[in-house]
Amino acid sequence: MSTPAPAGWIDEVAFDARGLVPVVAQERSSGAVLMVAWADRAALEQTLASGFATYYSRSRSRLWRKGEESGHVQRVHEILLDCDGDTVLYLVEQEGGIACHTGRPTCFFRRLEGGRWRVLAEPA
Amino acid sequence: MSTPAPAGWIDEVAFDARGLVPVVAQERSSGAVLMVAWADRAALEQTLASGFATYYSRSRSRLWRKGEESGHVQRVHEILLDCDGDTVLYLVEQEGGIACHTGRPTCFFRRLEGGRWRVLAEPA
Repeated sequence: MSTPAPAGWIDEVAFDARGLVPVVAQERSSGAVLMVAWADRAALEQTLASGFATYYSRSRSRLWRKGEESGHVQRVHEILLDCDGDTVLYLVEQEGGIACHTGRPTCFFRRLEGGRWRVLAEPA
Repeated sequence: MSTPAPAGWIDEVAFDARGLVPVVAQERSSGAVLMVAWADRAALEQTLASGFATYYSRSRSRLWRKGEESGHVQRVHEILLDCDGDTVLYLVEQEGGIACHTGRPTCFFRRLEGGRWRVLAEPA
């Protein structure tokens, strides 16, 4: 009979039916919420091992180290888990100050004002 | 022939196959990420109309005004949308300073340290 290995940190993460959890990336220095993406088990493990924010790209069906093409990597300083274990928070420093693929500092650049989304920032 | 109504702000939100989007609640004053939950169309509309953060409870299959039982409501100051339109950010003030159902200020109270989740805050 084999004894099960002790439950590791990853076993406390409650992945959904697709094997994914949402991940919020927050900039440690400014507190800005930069983006929300998804991670699978391997993405969380690679984030911890590499120190760089890694996600699972649903559109490309593969691991995705943020900034692998743009150079706008995210150095991960803390990994936090919520009360239900089903959401992760990366506290990061954003290389180049640009998290969004549109060239903006954060992906959340539209604010609801008077019934419309007003764009708050133009691309750098 | 009827003319379609002009697309409103809600039509720019990219709900998933279940009709939901993830919502990050961030405390405006401290910058703390408080929680992540889900919203459907009605939850977003009620949030805007009421000024109080409203979500869709997947476990109870109904709209859920945060704090409706605990009193720990969230006054919403800004509603932001990300680049892809598939994630929403509420900038809130958290009544009572307690967002988590465990009695803690934020749901993200576990930090990965040395291969374990360390609890950072005890309930108030």
